[in-house]
Amino acid sequence: MSAPAADLLLTARFVLPMDSTGTVIEDGGVAIGGDTILAVDTAAELLSRYPQAEVIDEPYGLIMPGLVNVHTHAAMALFRGIADDLLLMRWLQDYIFPVEAALTGELVYQGSLLSICEMIRSGTTSFCDMYLFADEVAQAAAEAGIRAWIGEVLYDFPSPNYGELANGLVYTKNLFARWSRHPLITVTVDPHAVYTCSPELLIELGAIAHDERALYVIHLSENAEEVRICRERYGCTPVEHLESLGLLGPNVVADHCVMLTATEITLLAERDVKVAHCPESNLKLASGIAPAAEMLAAGVTVGIGTDGSASNNDVDMFGEMSTAAKIQKLRCMDPTVMSADLTLKAATIGGAEVLGAGSYIGSLEPGKKADCIVIDFDQPHLTPVYHPISHLVYAARGADVLHSIINGRVVMRNRELLTLDEKAVLARSAEIGGRFRGLCNRG
Amino acid sequence: MSAPAADLLLTARFVLPMDSTGTVIEDGGVAIGGDTILAVDTAAELLSRYPQAEVIDEPYGLIMPGLVNVHTHAAMALFRGIADDLLLMRWLQDYIFPVEAALTGELVYQGSLLSICEMIRSGTTSFCDMYLFADEVAQAAAEAGIRAWIGEVLYDFPSPNYGELANGLVYTKNLFARWSRHPLITVTVDPHAVYTCSPELLIELGAIAHDERALYVIHLSENAEEVRICRERYGCTPVEHLESLGLLGPNVVADHCVMLTATEITLLAERDVKVAHCPESNLKLASGIAPAAEMLAAGVTVGIGTDGSASNNDVDMFGEMSTAAKIQKLRCMDPTVMSADLTLKAATIGGAEVLGAGSYIGSLEPGKKADCIVIDFDQPHLTPVYHPISHLVYAARGADVLHSIINGRVVMRNRELLTLDEKAVLARSAEIGGRFRGLCNRG
Repeated sequence: MSAPAADLLLTARFVLPMDSTGTVIEDGGVAIGGDTILAVDTAAELLSRYPQAEVIDEPYGLIMPGLVNVHTHAAMALFRGIADDLLLMRWLQDYIFPVEAALTGELVYQGSLLSICEMIRSGTTSFCDMYLFADEVAQAAAEAGIRAWIGEVLYDFPSPNYGELANGLVYTKNLFARWSRHPLITVTVDPHAVYTCSPELLIELGAIAHDERALYVIHLSENAEEVRICRERYGCTPVEHLESLGLLGPNVVADHCVMLTATEITLLAERDVKVAHCPESNLKLASGIAPAAEMLAAGVTVGIGTDGSASNNDVDMFGEMSTAAKIQKLRCMDPTVMSADLTLKAATIGGAEVLGAGSYIGSLEPGKKADCIVIDFDQPHLTPVYHPISHLVYAARGADVLHSIINGRVVMRNRELLTLDEKAVLARSAEIGGRFRGLCNRG
Repeated sequence: MSAPAADLLLTARFVLPMDSTGTVIEDGGVAIGGDTILAVDTAAELLSRYPQAEVIDEPYGLIMPGLVNVHTHAAMALFRGIADDLLLMRWLQDYIFPVEAALTGELVYQGSLLSICEMIRSGTTSFCDMYLFADEVAQAAAEAGIRAWIGEVLYDFPSPNYGELANGLVYTKNLFARWSRHPLITVTVDPHAVYTCSPELLIELGAIAHDERALYVIHLSENAEEVRICRERYGCTPVEHLESLGLLGPNVVADHCVMLTATEITLLAERDVKVAHCPESNLKLASGIAPAAEMLAAGVTVGIGTDGSASNNDVDMFGEMSTAAKIQKLRCMDPTVMSADLTLKAATIGGAEVLGAGSYIGSLEPGKKADCIVIDFDQPHLTPVYHPISHLVYAARGADVLHSIINGRVVMRNRELLTLDEKAVLARSAEIGGRFRGLCNRG
């Protein structure tokens, strides 16, 4: 009886499988055949078991699951730094709305490619995206070979993409038809928020998500203003509103969840709602700090997201982990909460579970899809090593990622992107930036 | 009449002098002769004025002043990640004290070199260090060619370095004698804190600082426990305590200043006390958030520090800027406070002023010492560019620094350290880490 042949063997000083045992394998490796992990073991064992495989060896490296960014608006990379340090309404009305009104499918495609370059460079192998022109986002992700959950954002008013709402529903259904067989792309149903979607729309989209067995992705309780509007309009909080509409369930990905009561946390846990925690965006927009420690303690599945690059201003999940761990300690005035272990779990297997994909990504285990990254520990800020997980959360940054493998395909090797023409993406993005510069209402 | 000859011309897409005019020069450059900046102008003008100079040209780069890290304990890089997510007393007693008791001058020298490698790689050209075995810290900095303010930490109890306190005073005086003529090293007087130094010691050190015209560097109002102990012992807050001892003045660098009342902020401004704001350490240890916005508004000179790598866990000032800007918005629940401009000033010219060096470093101006860095903007997370300062604070990271020049000397070129044998530093640090691993009281 012979083992299936491995195409690729990664070996390194450490392997961090992020499986339920919490093991760290020293001088370990991962064997990959096709799109699948065949084995995770010591390097010596794997080298003898799979003598024919191509080997990428990093004697000072660490192999771990790729990071899962559970909330972003990738194409907003084109708007990074166009305006900062402003009150939300001024930021939206004078900068973001004017440039978004000028968006086209082509621009969103280019902006998504730009963000995907940054994501791959900083260790993200899966992302969940809510934006306009979702079909073009999906095209960009498919071309780049990155795993993505993608939905067209829907609300009561007309969209720069599909125009009237009725077209948006058709557009969403077409997305499912178009991408249902793609190995990397999963379509989601994305109502924007309770203050931009009528109860009827929220319910109708719930039905579509149910029929398509899809995730229902929604901004929820992001800030005090959202809660205020919801209370004024419906006499209850955003969470209570979705509950009253019968929409809270295991397929809901609730983005932000900054403003939650203890009762709401219990309810989210009971309904098995998943939460995308986006700490840096919540700080930069002065929204607050989500009660991540309490949510985790209550059994809510929490992943980490960067939000879009206009309000972060990056998609570096390593930086996001560091912030997530630190600000939760501040919030609770307790340095023991949101440990490095819990934080790294939220950014890997936790994120996979948020996206309903915990059975096939998020950890390095035989039979799972081969989404993994290799970190260069041969650097001053990662030497010496007492606990690899501490370094990953508190000291490592995106630029420390050497190689990235998604679905068994090497998409970055020695920091060179192999699936995208990065120079062309940068040149085109710089050119688009020049055009957007003229559209903002400065001064 | 001929201009003095330039040895080196840096040219790039942007020059950000951080002078009082707030200019950004496109296609600009900096001319350096010896240790001094000769001119800051367009690249074309400088190339014609200094045709003989060696040119380092980065068509997608940005030239700016090197970053000033106003509070660290460099050698603690050896303890990075040895223990995290613990209550302060357990962290100190089970981990930090056992390893610090085993420190020697040689270990501190090695740890300082390790941290300096990381500092140069991440754009810091000046740092202010408080630690044991300060003479060895100074040796490491001098060898690396980095600018540093260095003091031996003093307190009432015996030290692993000098033993009894009386020896510590002699040690400090010897530091002044030994380093007074060095172009890069400035010695400081470093009482640890009001809860570890008697009023008599604080006063005696104040006199030494006065005689030596030196900075008086002290941890001040870092957390609630410090304030509680001070109130219990002296019936007043740490700031009031120093005021009552007549010690608050323009040469005081007060580290942390998390717990301040409005009255204390006014007092610090009146006394022209300088503040080292260390946001990431304050978050990770659950100390709180310093009122940086109020201090700046009151006219206090505020710089940014990383604190030691055991409580941060890095010395990347780019990450520290991003955190400083974001958490202040959270603290004030106002996204307009601690703008990117204010934050970058605090990390450059503000930091220089904290260290009493605003007249000769912190900005790129003719006659100042040539401490500057070149950032690579040809990357996905820094494209397109609307406002360079936004990118520097909210999106750039240490790994984006290409070249570093300190006192006119190129210390890093294309990310290769030129003054240190980095491989040897890493190997030695890894070996030391192996020894420390056995000293902690685990489990």
